[in-house]
Amino acid sequence: MGYIEQWRSDTPGSLHCTHLNNAGASLMPTKVIDAIKLHIDLEAKMGGYEAAAHQADAIGQFYDQAANLFRAQSKNFAFTANATDAYNRALSSIEFKPGDVILTTSNDYVSNFVVFLNLKKRWGIQIKIVSNLPSGEIDLDALRDDIIKFQPTVFSLTHIPTNSGLIQPADAAGQICKENEIIYLVDGCQSAGQLDVNLTAMQCDFYSATFRKFLRGPRGAGFLYVSDRMLDNNYHPLFLDMRGADWIEEENFSLKDNATRFEDWENSYASLLGASAALAYANSVGMPVIQNRVQLLANQLREKLSNIERVSVMDRGTQKGAIVTAHIESLDPQLLKSALRQEKINCSFGTKLNALLDFKEKKIDWIVRFAPHYFNTEEEIKKPVAVIQDILH
Amino acid sequence: MGYIEQWRSDTPGSLHCTHLNNAGASLMPTKVIDAIKLHIDLEAKMGGYEAAAHQADAIGQFYDQAANLFRAQSKNFAFTANATDAYNRALSSIEFKPGDVILTTSNDYVSNFVVFLNLKKRWGIQIKIVSNLPSGEIDLDALRDDIIKFQPTVFSLTHIPTNSGLIQPADAAGQICKENEIIYLVDGCQSAGQLDVNLTAMQCDFYSATFRKFLRGPRGAGFLYVSDRMLDNNYHPLFLDMRGADWIEEENFSLKDNATRFEDWENSYASLLGASAALAYANSVGMPVIQNRVQLLANQLREKLSNIERVSVMDRGTQKGAIVTAHIESLDPQLLKSALRQEKINCSFGTKLNALLDFKEKKIDWIVRFAPHYFNTEEEIKKPVAVIQDILH
Repeated sequence: MGYIEQWRSDTPGSLHCTHLNNAGASLMPTKVIDAIKLHIDLEAKMGGYEAAAHQADAIGQFYDQAANLFRAQSKNFAFTANATDAYNRALSSIEFKPGDVILTTSNDYVSNFVVFLNLKKRWGIQIKIVSNLPSGEIDLDALRDDIIKFQPTVFSLTHIPTNSGLIQPADAAGQICKENEIIYLVDGCQSAGQLDVNLTAMQCDFYSATFRKFLRGPRGAGFLYVSDRMLDNNYHPLFLDMRGADWIEEENFSLKDNATRFEDWENSYASLLGASAALAYANSVGMPVIQNRVQLLANQLREKLSNIERVSVMDRGTQKGAIVTAHIESLDPQLLKSALRQEKINCSFGTKLNALLDFKEKKIDWIVRFAPHYFNTEEEIKKPVAVIQDILH
Repeated sequence: MGYIEQWRSDTPGSLHCTHLNNAGASLMPTKVIDAIKLHIDLEAKMGGYEAAAHQADAIGQFYDQAANLFRAQSKNFAFTANATDAYNRALSSIEFKPGDVILTTSNDYVSNFVVFLNLKKRWGIQIKIVSNLPSGEIDLDALRDDIIKFQPTVFSLTHIPTNSGLIQPADAAGQICKENEIIYLVDGCQSAGQLDVNLTAMQCDFYSATFRKFLRGPRGAGFLYVSDRMLDNNYHPLFLDMRGADWIEEENFSLKDNATRFEDWENSYASLLGASAALAYANSVGMPVIQNRVQLLANQLREKLSNIERVSVMDRGTQKGAIVTAHIESLDPQLLKSALRQEKINCSFGTKLNALLDFKEKKIDWIVRFAPHYFNTEEEIKKPVAVIQDILH
């Protein structure tokens, strides 16, 4: 059996649909499904705490698998309920004063922006936006200048924005943040499991991500990477849980020495074990293999779509990732949605609520988003193209 | 088949162990287990987003089942990843100023206390503690006096503390908070699914709880009740997610009009559907039936334990709940732990890290905690008693 056949035979969902919604939620491999269901059965049989004690070693391996995939140490990882929760825990650990600046980009994730606006109202922080190059990435010279000009507390970068193929230069930005000693917070929701991410090389202080997307884990599972610098300087979430601290005296608590101080006491261990199996599966396939194949398939799709009249591929960036977005002139997106659904092609649609600033710049009000993964075939890539050609004919 | 036989036949774990750890995590009924696994299979087959769309009606029923069980409206409930997370989201929605007072009790949950201490450091809030009656409950006259004296922003009450049978007078305290117009935040982790809780009668502003304990749902699932008053006055979490708000203009967002503004976009829908099945099961058994049987079994256990020499039952309160705690003079708790494990009796042990203030008052450093549920039998209640008698013999 070839690699692709093996990956598909490990992915029961690949028999049932053409899944190009991997930037939304991917299809779980059998090992992930089994890990979740096995633990639910154990909890049902033994009790929830008793099952967690029984699986203590397997639970510990979650941190090792994450360390292996993202080139860091086990102590740098925390399991969270989702990516935004991970991101917010990181942000909450920073003691902002009124007037403090958060520097970010016009392509940052909408939830992050809503949080910034709320912190502006509640804490009086300021939001500044680094300008982009004509190719779409942030302008690294502008980043350097803005850091000097605004003296920001933190630079927040969404590694791969949700609505375009763009890959931001996260490593180069990390070097600039390090030189200027500002906190570097990366939203890796779309890059984890898609790119061969090396967190040590990125030099970020925090990296938050979800499992349901390119990592192919369960929904309702995420993680936070916390750098040694943040751990050594006692950064901890504002709403610190007893998981993260011991209450040692009436007026005092002591922090855990690793990133689990960012976790809550209570977790879905079934989801954590599913996430761990997803990390192990990605480790076994190999991130360089995944990254290359995903970009190959996405580039094929971009090329085919851009050859259709009335279709504009909206992706930017010098190096493009798995997310392929397109807008079709004078077409009701509902028509396209139904036609794709009829052919069992899974994808998603974006509106300006998902990315206000980016859509404003692009002067469009909807996009269709296809995101292939390495288990997709070249035949599958042709299917949405055929559907669109058919509608426009 | 009688009721008890039916409940046990619906509970596969009851065949395998004597589960008296229901205040830790209870045993899930078959309908809960099936709801979780069915949805995991759907996600694996269809994709995560596609499965959620397919189950939209069932997901909506979660809020209706919660409203039914807790006597409130569907719009007042938010699904969360756990109880502390729910509690912290509620707390985060309050705009504390330096010097603001949180009034609480010496029996509040340890995670809540760690959060208070951190907010004291970060925001300069003050923590004041209402005194207890000799019987263990808070002194309602003292509550009234402290509210006048300290003018607190919020009163936080743990309805049933984790380490004793105590049930706090939550409804009476609610009336006092209402008369004085202070925010009333109830930690219902141990009361949800154990007591016949009527949130409308309690008049609380927030009530946070977990599913894994007396509600018999999955781990990693909780909920937050938010009163109409809080919703109407635009209370929302500090780290607001795009689930809770629409980003309508560059500098503005609009809040959802129901309690889902306290949710994140991303959830484990498998866990939510399991939680919904757990609520439906509790609704079908009936909370008055559950409450009566749990107290009957717990009282039997208390009586049997208190008849053993060297054993002190540590529970306080005029009306006592399902949690039975005991300390045994001059006994290494490890011995007891092994003996109970050998007989497959599930329970838990507490140390002063779990409840510093309470343990200090009781002058002990460990307790064993048994918590029966309605599916336990009177025969099962006798088992830990026999084990203790055997050890002390």
